[in-house]
Order: sequence, then C-alpha cells, then structure tokens
Amino acid sequence: MQLRENLYTRTGWEIEEQRFDAEQLVTNGSNYMVGNGYLGYRGTFPEWTRSEYVGCTVSDTYDSADGTWKELCTVPNGLYLQATIGGRRLSVFEGSLEAYRRSLDFRYGVHSRTLRWIAPEESDAVCAEVSDRRFASYDNLHLLVARYEVQSAHPIQIRLGIDGEVWSLNGEHFSSYSARAHQDCLVVETVTGEYGVSVVVAHACRLVGGPRPASEEVRLEERSAYRDLAFERSDQPLELEYYMSVYSSNDVADPAAAAAEAARAAMRSGYQELYQRHCAVWDQKWARSAVQIEGDATAETLLRYNTYHNLIATPAHTDHLPIGARGLSCQAYQGAAFWDQEIFNLPMFLFTDPTVARRILVYRHRTLDGARKKARDLGYRGAFYAWVSGDSGEEICPSYFFVDVLSGRKIRNHFNDWQIHISPDIAFTVWRYYAVTEDLQFMLEYGAEMVFEIARFLVSHAYFKRDKNRFEFIRLLGPDEYHENVDNNAFTNYMARHAIWVALRTWEMLEEQHPQRLEELVRAIGMNSDEVDEWRAMHKLIYIKPVDPQTGLIEQFDGFFQLEDILPGDLQQRLIDPGEYWGWPNGIAVPTQVAKQADVAQLFMLHPDAYDTATMRANYDYYEPRTQHGSSLSPSVYAVVAAWLGYSQKAYDFFIRSATVDLFNTNKAVSGGTFIGGIHTAACGVAWQIVVMGFADMRLVNDELRFSPRMPQHWQTVRFYVELRGAKLSVAITPNSLTLNSEASSQASVACAVFESRVQVAPGTTHTLRFDEPAGR
Amino acid sequence: MQLRENLYTRTGWEIEEQRFDAEQLVTNGSNYMVGNGYLGYRGTFPEWTRSEYVGCTVSDTYDSADGTWKELCTVPNGLYLQATIGGRRLSVFEGSLEAYRRSLDFRYGVHSRTLRWIAPEESDAVCAEVSDRRFASYDNLHLLVARYEVQSAHPIQIRLGIDGEVWSLNGEHFSSYSARAHQDCLVVETVTGEYGVSVVVAHACRLVGGPRPASEEVRLEERSAYRDLAFERSDQPLELEYYMSVYSSNDVADPAAAAAEAARAAMRSGYQELYQRHCAVWDQKWARSAVQIEGDATAETLLRYNTYHNLIATPAHTDHLPIGARGLSCQAYQGAAFWDQEIFNLPMFLFTDPTVARRILVYRHRTLDGARKKARDLGYRGAFYAWVSGDSGEEICPSYFFVDVLSGRKIRNHFNDWQIHISPDIAFTVWRYYAVTEDLQFMLEYGAEMVFEIARFLVSHAYFKRDKNRFEFIRLLGPDEYHENVDNNAFTNYMARHAIWVALRTWEMLEEQHPQRLEELVRAIGMNSDEVDEWRAMHKLIYIKPVDPQTGLIEQFDGFFQLEDILPGDLQQRLIDPGEYWGWPNGIAVPTQVAKQADVAQLFMLHPDAYDTATMRANYDYYEPRTQHGSSLSPSVYAVVAAWLGYSQKAYDFFIRSATVDLFNTNKAVSGGTFIGGIHTAACGVAWQIVVMGFADMRLVNDELRFSPRMPQHWQTVRFYVELRGAKLSVAITPNSLTLNSEASSQASVACAVFESRVQVAPGTTHTLRFDEPAGR
Repeated sequence: MQLRENLYTRTGWEIEEQRFDAEQLVTNGSNYMVGNGYLGYRGTFPEWTRSEYVGCTVSDTYDSADGTWKELCTVPNGLYLQATIGGRRLSVFEGSLEAYRRSLDFRYGVHSRTLRWIAPEESDAVCAEVSDRRFASYDNLHLLVARYEVQSAHPIQIRLGIDGEVWSLNGEHFSSYSARAHQDCLVVETVTGEYGVSVVVAHACRLVGGPRPASEEVRLEERSAYRDLAFERSDQPLELEYYMSVYSSNDVADPAAAAAEAARAAMRSGYQELYQRHCAVWDQKWARSAVQIEGDATAETLLRYNTYHNLIATPAHTDHLPIGARGLSCQAYQGAAFWDQEIFNLPMFLFTDPTVARRILVYRHRTLDGARKKARDLGYRGAFYAWVSGDSGEEICPSYFFVDVLSGRKIRNHFNDWQIHISPDIAFTVWRYYAVTEDLQFMLEYGAEMVFEIARFLVSHAYFKRDKNRFEFIRLLGPDEYHENVDNNAFTNYMARHAIWVALRTWEMLEEQHPQRLEELVRAIGMNSDEVDEWRAMHKLIYIKPVDPQTGLIEQFDGFFQLEDILPGDLQQRLIDPGEYWGWPNGIAVPTQVAKQADVAQLFMLHPDAYDTATMRANYDYYEPRTQHGSSLSPSVYAVVAAWLGYSQKAYDFFIRSATVDLFNTNKAVSGGTFIGGIHTAACGVAWQIVVMGFADMRLVNDELRFSPRMPQHWQTVRFYVELRGAKLSVAITPNSLTLNSEASSQASVACAVFESRVQVAPGTTHTLRFDEPAGR
Repeated sequence: MQLRENLYTRTGWEIEEQRFDAEQLVTNGSNYMVGNGYLGYRGTFPEWTRSEYVGCTVSDTYDSADGTWKELCTVPNGLYLQATIGGRRLSVFEGSLEAYRRSLDFRYGVHSRTLRWIAPEESDAVCAEVSDRRFASYDNLHLLVARYEVQSAHPIQIRLGIDGEVWSLNGEHFSSYSARAHQDCLVVETVTGEYGVSVVVAHACRLVGGPRPASEEVRLEERSAYRDLAFERSDQPLELEYYMSVYSSNDVADPAAAAAEAARAAMRSGYQELYQRHCAVWDQKWARSAVQIEGDATAETLLRYNTYHNLIATPAHTDHLPIGARGLSCQAYQGAAFWDQEIFNLPMFLFTDPTVARRILVYRHRTLDGARKKARDLGYRGAFYAWVSGDSGEEICPSYFFVDVLSGRKIRNHFNDWQIHISPDIAFTVWRYYAVTEDLQFMLEYGAEMVFEIARFLVSHAYFKRDKNRFEFIRLLGPDEYHENVDNNAFTNYMARHAIWVALRTWEMLEEQHPQRLEELVRAIGMNSDEVDEWRAMHKLIYIKPVDPQTGLIEQFDGFFQLEDILPGDLQQRLIDPGEYWGWPNGIAVPTQVAKQADVAQLFMLHPDAYDTATMRANYDYYEPRTQHGSSLSPSVYAVVAAWLGYSQKAYDFFIRSATVDLFNTNKAVSGGTFIGGIHTAACGVAWQIVVMGFADMRLVNDELRFSPRMPQHWQTVRFYVELRGAKLSVAITPNSLTLNSEASSQASVACAVFESRVQVAPGTTHTLRFDEPAGR
C-alpha cells in the first residue's frame, strides 16, 4: 500500500522506500531510526559518516560544548561498515542502484536495506548485492545488533568498526578520545568536556557465512578503531554480524569494561538469539499499546508508526531521565523534556503501562531541586520547572537562540522565564496519574511534595488586583508561542487554579489520612499553614477568563480580541524572508490574532468537562482558522476537540496531519536559524490520545471510565487496550457498539459507561453495549 | 564673541551666522525661529518655500492627515517675498553672497538678514543689497511683522504675499484652499481635513521708502495669493513693510474677518509702532526670566537663548493649550505636551511667572476627560494622562512609528500605554505648584480633581504581591526609554507613591477646610471613602526600590543589574545601521545596562531631599557612565545632580551640553525613520533650572526658600529673579555671598536660608548672607 510518493507499507507494520532520495538525509535519518529509550540510532547506512548525519544519541550524556546548548552526545559509530567491491567503495551516491529497498519494521524496530549496486563504469562492470539490517536491543539497552550480507563476483574488502566522525549539532562534546583494540573487540573511550563523563563504545563482529578473510588488520586512529578484512573472489555471499555497545560512567562504574563485555557477550550469542530476546520485549509493548483500526489501514499504520516512536523515545527503564522533545532521534531540543512530556507523551502510558507514566513523573520529582533553583534565581519560591529539562532539572533553555534572519541579530526569547504553565501542567499530570492509578504511595513519596512546591511557585508568581479582587498572572507565554508577554492567558490561569486545587486536595488528603507524612513533609520543605490559607484564597480568586455570553468566546489573553484580525495565509504574505520567526518580539504574528498553535483549545483538551459543547464549538470555530499550526503540538489538539464536537472530517484530517508531521516532513527543520528537525515525539505520543481520548472519547469521571465514541465513518472496528487500577481491558468499538473485555488476570472490576449505558466490568467478563450513532455531543 | 564655527554673539542677546550654510536648513530654521506661544515662524528667508522647510506652525490646529500623526498645521506663508533683480530671481543658493549676516535677536525676538547678492554671471553683473527682518508680535499674537529693504542699480520686481507651498511633515492637512484679494490685503482661507477648522492667513503690505511701483498686479493661485510689484531703476533703496495675520475658527467665530482686519490694522500702525508695543511685552518677560552671569558670557548667552525658546514655545496666553515638545518650531512631536512640560518647562515659570505655570496646569485639568478616556480604553480607572497630549488630552501617540531600519518593518512602541509615570508626574507638579504658590483656589477648582483621578488610576494599575505584602507596578517604561516592559522602575514607583501621598494630603486638606467642596467633588466624580482607605494602604505598601546597603545603589528596575554591563561607546559598535533605534523591542541597548537617559538620577532631581548625598553620589557614579544621553532630557538632569554633588566640572559640562542641544545640533533629526528634529523645548526650559535649582540649589523646604550655591568657579556674580507667594526677590550670588532683595511691591515676606544662615526677607529689604565656599554637600 502506498502512503505517499516513495513511501509504502506492506503489512501495516513497516514503512518502506523504494527509491533512494539524497535530499532526505536529515528527515529519513530520523524517520527510519531505531532505538530503545536508552539510545537512538539514526536511519543511516552502514558506510555513512558525519556528512550523512550519522548519529547514535545516548541518553544521560548532557554536555555543553559551545557554552549555549547543553545537549546529549552522539557517540562514535560502532556500526560503521564500508564495503569495497573490486576496489570501488560502495556508495549509494555513486554508480547506480537496482532493486533498492529500505525499510523500518516498527513491529520489532528493525532497519534494513537491500540493493544491487553497480559501480560507476570505468572499465569492467563492478556490481554487488547488499543486504543489511540492524536493531537497538530492548533486551540489553546498551546494545545495537547488525548484520551485513554482500555478494559480488569481485574481490571484497570490508572496513568495519567504530567511526568517530559522527554528526554533532552544536560542537565537539568530547575532550578526549582513546581508541584501543582488544583481541576480540574494538573500543573507543571518550570523555565529555563539561562534566567529564566517560562514554565508551565497543564493537565486535563475527563472520557467519562466506569465505574466510585473506587478510585482517586493525587500524586505530585518534577517534576511530577499524578492522580491515580482505576477501578473495567467492561465489558465496559474505555474511557478517557486528555489535555495538555503549556505556557511560553515568550507567556503571567501569563503562569500558562493561562495553567490551557487552560486545563480546553479544558476539557469543549471535544475531538470531539476540533478536529473539529483543522481540519478546516488543511483543509485550505492543500487547499494551497497539491499536487496531479495521477499515483504515493507513490510519492504523500511521498510528503504529507514531506509537513506535513514542515508545523508543521514552526512557522506560529508569525514573531519572526525561522524554526528549525529539526523543533520541538527534540532538535537537537538547534531549530534554518540555511540557510535551506530560501532556502529549505520558497519557498513552498512563492508560497502557502506568509504571512508565510513574517513572516519568518520578523524574520530575528528582528534578525538583532544579525547579526550586530556577524559581529562586528568578525571584520566586517553590518549584518553577525548567522549560527545557535535562538531567538535573535546572533550566537549560538558552535565553538567546532564535536569530532575526533579517538582521542576523539574536533574539531574546522568554520560553525559559515566562512560559510558566509548565509547572501547573506537571501538577495536573501528577493528579491525573493519581486519579487514574490511585497510587497513593506515589503521592506520599513524590506527588505531594511536587504539587506543594508548584502551588508555592504560583503563589509567588501571582499578583493580586485589589480593585478587582482577583489574582492575575502577568507577563506570560501561553501555549501559543507567538504571543509572549501576555496577561491572564486563559489556559495558564485555568491550569494554575487547577494546580492550586490539586495542592489543596492533596493537603487535605494527607491531613486526614497521613498526618504524619504531612508533618514530615511540611518540616522538610519548611511550610506553614498560612500558606494553605493562601491557596484557599487563590483558588477562589484566580481570574478565570470568562465565556462571553454573547459570542461564547473565551479570550485567549487580555486584549487578544483587540489585535488585528487576519488569517494566517494572508499574514504570511508579510514575510520578508521565509525563515523569519513569526513570534516575539517583532515577528509578523505578534500584533495579530494569528496563533502558532492551539491555546484555548488546549484548555478544552485537558479539561473536557469544564465547558459545555456550545462554548467549545464557538471557540473552535473562532480560533482554528486563526491558528497557523506552526507547532507540531497543534493539529492533535484540534483533532481531539473536533472529534468531540462531531466535526468528523476535520478531526480525521487533523489526526492524519498530526500523525504525518514527520513521515510527510511537513514541519520546517530550521526556524530563526536554529535546527529544530528530528522526530516530533509529542505528535507521536498524542496519536494514541487522538484515537482513544478523542474519537472514542474515553475519560475517567468520578471513578467511572466513560466512552462516547464518534469514530470516523469508515472505521469498522477499533480495538485497544486500557489498564485502569489493576483492570486490564480490551476495548472494541464498532459504529454502534462497544465491547469491554476484562482479562481474567485483572485485579479489580471497573465501572464503565458508554454514553448513558453503565456497566460494572469484572475480571474475566465481557460486555457489549450498543448505542445509536450520536447526533452530536 | 564666537560661540562655535559660524556662530557668534555680540551683546549676548543674539546669535549670528556670518556664512550661509545650505546644509543646515532644517536645524537653523528651528534655531533662528521667532514666535510668541500662539505661532512659531521658522528661521527661513523671505524668498523660500516648501523645499527650504518654510513653516509657520499655528497652535490649536490639530489635524491628522495620514491617519497616524495628529499634528499642528503649518499655514500658508503670508511673509513670502521674492525679489527679482535685473530679471534674476534673488536666491542665496545661486550667485554669490557678500557681507552676509543672519541673526536672531532673542532680546526682542527679531530675525534679520543682510547680504549683498551678486547674481550668477551671464552678461552684465547684477547685484543687490538686501536687508530684511521680522518678528512675531507679542502684542498681537496673531501677527507677524516684516520689513524688507533692497537696493540695486537694476530694475527690481517684487512678488510678495501668501505662498501656500509650505513644509508639512505628515501629509496635507487642508481639505480646501481659497485665495482672495481685497483692495488692501490678500487672504487665503483653508479648512482642516479632520475637524473642519477654518484657518485663515491674511497679508498686507506697504511701501515706506523708494520709488513707487511702475506696475502692480495681484495673482491668485489655488492656495496662494501674491502681489507683483515692478520698479524701475532707482538710486533709492526700496523699503517695504508687510504683515501676516493668522486666525482660526478655534480662536474667533469669523477668522477671515479677523485676519483681514488684523492685517489692515497692522498696516495702519506700521512696523515701528508694532515693534515698540511688542518690545514692551518682551521687557516684562525678561524682567522675570533673565539670568545674569558675570564672568561667563558664553553661559549667559546660552542660557538666554534657551530661555527665549522656552518662552516662545509656551502658550502663556491661554489655559487650554500645551507646550509642545518641539514647541512651535515645526510639527515634530505633534505640537503636543509630554512629561517634559511639567518637569522641564514649567519650573522656570513656577518661580518667575506663576500665572503661566497655573495656566499650563489648568490645561491638564481641561484634558482630564481625555485622560479618563485613555484609562478606560486600557482597562483602568481614573486619569491616565496621554503620553502625547494635544488639544483634547486623548492619547495621540501612535502605537507604531519607529521603523526597524534593518527590515523596514514598523515597531510597536509602548510609550502610549506603558509609560505611566506621566500621571504621577502631573500630580507631583500640581503639588509643587501648590506648595510654591499656596494657590488654594487652584487646588479646589482643578488640582484636587486631578490628583484624585490620578490616584484612582494608580490604584487600578497597581498589583499587590500578597507574598511580599507590597504593591508593585508592572510592565513599565520609565524615563529610560530603551528599556520597556520593566517592573518596579525606581522612579515610577517613587513618583506613584508620592502621587498617592498628594491625593491623601489634598483629601485631608479639603476634608478639614473645605468639606463642602470635597463633598461636591466626590459626588461629581463618584468617589467613595473606601477609595481613600486604599490610598492609605497603598501609600504604606508601594514597593520603593531599596538602597543597597553595601553599594549604595538603587536598582533602576527589577533585574537591571543582571543585564549585560557594557558602556555606551562599546555598545555602539554593535550597530548594523547608524539609524537603528537602540531600544525596545530588539535594539542593542535592550539586553544591557545602557540607559537612554537619566532615570534614577531623575528621581533625585525631583526629590532632592529623599536620599542622602552618599547615595546620590554612588548612583551618579554608577549610572552616568552607563547613560548614552540619547535623549535631550538627559544631560540637564545629570548637570543638576552633579552640581549638588560638587562635581563642578561635570555639572558645568552637562549644563553646556544641555544648553547647546539645538544650537550645536548635537541630537539626530531622525530616529528609526521618524523625524524628531526641531527645538528641544525641554532642554531650553531646564536651562534655568540647572542654574537656579542646580548650581544655586534653591529649593523650598517647609516654607523656607533654601539656597546652597555651588557655582562654577569662574562665575563671579549670578543674578536672577524669583517670585514666591507674592514676594518678588532679586537674588545675587557671588562665590561667598548671597544677596536677597525683596521689591517694595512684594506682598509678603519670605523665610530664606543660605546654607545654615537664616533670614526673613521683608518687602523692600535687602540682605546679604556670607558663606565659605562649601567643601561638599
């Protein structure tokens, strides 16, 4: 099935290109990547190097090379392999390619390529059949496993090993390199410049078919270690397996020993055995997160593809690392968490694999000190979470990175100090996690401290208008990033009030049920009960932007409706340079109502029960046409709200748009001079939400799991898995029924509702509830 | 005495140029202007027209031609005169000039020119002796009076009358023109486009010497009316007097009749009689405002020159017009009042001619509704005075006028909505006026309402920080205009608290002494006593930026010291284009500590007793080197504070710098694409302050007029006039004495102090107090 020009799928579990496109190195390197939450390896070819954007991005290796961008390191490439056929270096850029196929199997995370290569003709025709594949092991996260087959009528030379010439976005992160050869493996040790983290790559290989090498030699360079193998002419295909392992001193005490041992162990096990172990883990993951969409193979494929990227971007193995906004696809966005993590990536895990959701939130607890420091540095109290959050949680968002392309002068952005909604977003998610899981232990150990500190921050940020008897939030940057320096952003104020409510509820819960823990916590963070009184006052008096009784509109922020009313297409005509940033301080969108992304709609998405349908509709109708969707976070939000409003076609279109942000390469890779390419993990993570929380409209209301499905008309049956408080549910939705099956191993029954029908779903039972297609929500 | 290249004075009462400089048309047109507070007539030559920036700017003729800039009109030039000598049009741009002199006598406001003109040689040499002069009558403000003498061996033709081709800065303000000829005068009637104000210019002339014309003809064009006179060869000089009068329908019901009648009456009186009446008024003005500086003729001349411009810029004849920031020298700054009016122009009048100070303040009362409207439009209460205040007091500062010269895109400035200190500046001045004059009637009729409404505005603008128990002012633009969008600007917060204090003091005063008027006022503006409680709360809790006990520094605004510390000269290197605006949003000064102008020092200037000398010194030393003095308001403030600190040389240098802003043409005429040339009336007005309130350090403290003179060393005797509560004092200061003489006509005695010596100065008495030169303040 063709998805678009040069993009196909056969089973719905892979994407494939049938023509090599040299223009798409950056994009396809991300789209076809493999990874496992510890590392990401770009979808590049074995013989490629720095100039083709080869990069293996390793988590927990933050380093600032240029003093501006703290980012993850790309480590030396231990899966380098350059074949030379009849004296001609194999290259997809030269000669001609026949029977070219490159695919990414996202069922099991395998990148593979086959081709017949004919060297550029000089004298006798030189050609070779090549097939290679690789995966990033989910069984051992430090391991990448690859296989290379090549057959030719000419002599073959192979150089493979560790190539130190890899892509690094912002400078050289390693202050030293040391290449070594052991008997059975190659090792390159590096040390990061800023913190002196030792990062070690090891490489091993074994020949599993074809002739023995006529010669074998090891070559060490400053930052590379290669093994050169030369083969005589042979009728048999040459078959190689090779292994790359990575450890850092943040992982183990002796990363050099660990890396070498992992490479050796991999060599002992061999590709096939490693692959089987790896697949077993993927099977478990997909059992939870795969969604089946009968009647729409495209949507199904796209959803799986996005889910794949959400999974491999997530450091599910640990509770001390963030989900990067570009995952591990490259170094853009600094391998760091934004609000994307909680709002876009996390919900899928919350309902399918809550342990992972918990770990992500524990990461936020581990970074509380960083958030406290940020608050303190900016003159606030409590926890002001980093807009860009790396290992420590200290703010690593530079104050300057966009460049005014018209003058070449840097622009001070205020993502780091004005976009305060990050803190209430986290409080919201803590509470959502608790509401879904009832994980009291989490609240006692982590959640309470976080929400108290967030409430404190909000208290210290808020201004009280005595003449209006209300608290206001001033000088904000809401979700719509084109409008900085605004007051009372509807989304931010609502989220802030909710966060205060969460803190109050948590306080009361602990006061009633765990007074000792509360006392302990209060002592630890130096709280007093006056503070709680202030939360109560704030909860009553935070200014919530009203719904205009005439128009039904909620103003995005104070004065928004006084801005110039123009549509994005017309506004675009004002660009002098297509690379201009549209936003603050002097971009073309600033004096207008054109928003970068969903803002009021974002509020609806997170608080679906706060406003009635007429209000949502009025605001959708007003704001959507004025939204440029200049952020990959935007179409998904409108997809969800459109689904709720019964705007079926719009919802579907926005779903497809959101799910193809990367695959169809619709977002620009550079904005205001800064590289922002790579996988948009938020868009990947939210795909599941659009289907389950948008189209199926699943929400937890007062301990009841409610569904109000409004599926696209051509979707026959949609099946997905949901886990709720120990109940493991398979959900199947047809145009007029919803079937709930609770696995026998479920630990609890759960109250469910489909529209007005209610049912208690006990372990091991199946219930089908029928409904007429709803006329509207 | 030479003041600089091509600038001389003979008596200290005039300036003179001895070489015609075609490069300085714009600047000299302003510097050599004549005017009388009703109109301003640029220092141009009789035969000039639009391309030489001829303009007679008339007060109270506000019109917006281009929809952006509301400005005063320049009316048709009724003093146009083109001589043609032997068939060659006299022009200073062609031929050659001998014995050229052009001067401005500021004793009596007379512009004059003499020259011998030799036409460009073609056949026989044509030459003429020319002498012309003009003044703007102070006896009849609607009248300009001119005289022209020309002598030549060749036949002379004269075209004179009303030329409609005059300079207009921002578009065509008149929707219609109508030119008429009466028997004895010419008339051009115009109507403004926006409000339909009829503006009429009349012209009359008479021959007073030389031959009778051989022919005489009237020529009417669309917007011009000329009289063509042809003379035969004659040995006698030709002597003409001619008169221009201007009336608008804002002045009288029938401006056409009034203008014609004024021209005719002038013709009947003749130049000499009109001049005598005019001089009598000037004599009165100078009796009050002239300062004598023995030992420094330069300083004396400069001070008089600046005082002249302060006088002619001021509409002393009425209480319904503002002092324009460029006076009536041109249309720049929209003929409108800024805070300059109260802080820079007014104090000289307050102490020399308090009636004028009163009128200026009554103007602010007349514009209260405009200030209320502005507050309402921006979501506030009370009176938020216009940053740029024309006739109605509604805000006429456009939101966009600076252009980013690098992109050509307009910049949204926030002078109009963020520079809130204008309102407390006015409250401060109301109180200062009352303190100096004890004019209770003014307070009852005007002042109280103004300061109450200003306090209301401040209440509605302030935010209360509950966690810090203080009121804050957020998103400000302080005096330093390079830094917009700042919080708790030290100057603004202090001024706001003072304004609240003024409102409270006024309230208490009325409550005790005039409860009926208070009740009336309270009813009229709908106040209640809760509001006064809130003033009391605010007065206690407005955040006043503290003095750092270590450094003695007051932070200009929150976070100022975190900005990049760089000096203006170094910063300037970052300019890409010399015409760039340095300020908001993305100018080079924004992320730095470089200030456009005095800001913390401005606070000292207005509140000299609020901080001790050590604090003033620490802040002067810190801030002055970081000040670019990019505003003409800046050097004067540093001059005053430097004088107080005993920084004699610096004080003197800043005095000279401030007093020569126009004369030495040190400020740029265009910034960010906007013409900002013309006379800097604030710098003119403040010159008197620098001497009397800076060097002589005269201040009124608890009903006592205190002097602490620290004059420049080479000043032998400084004499000036001060009026205080009916006492008319002549003050003479030598290096070690101060003599106070109270005129016999004084109506009260006044308590004075010179350093620690105190004296009661009764009418008709003279007291000399001696002192040692102070070592420091």
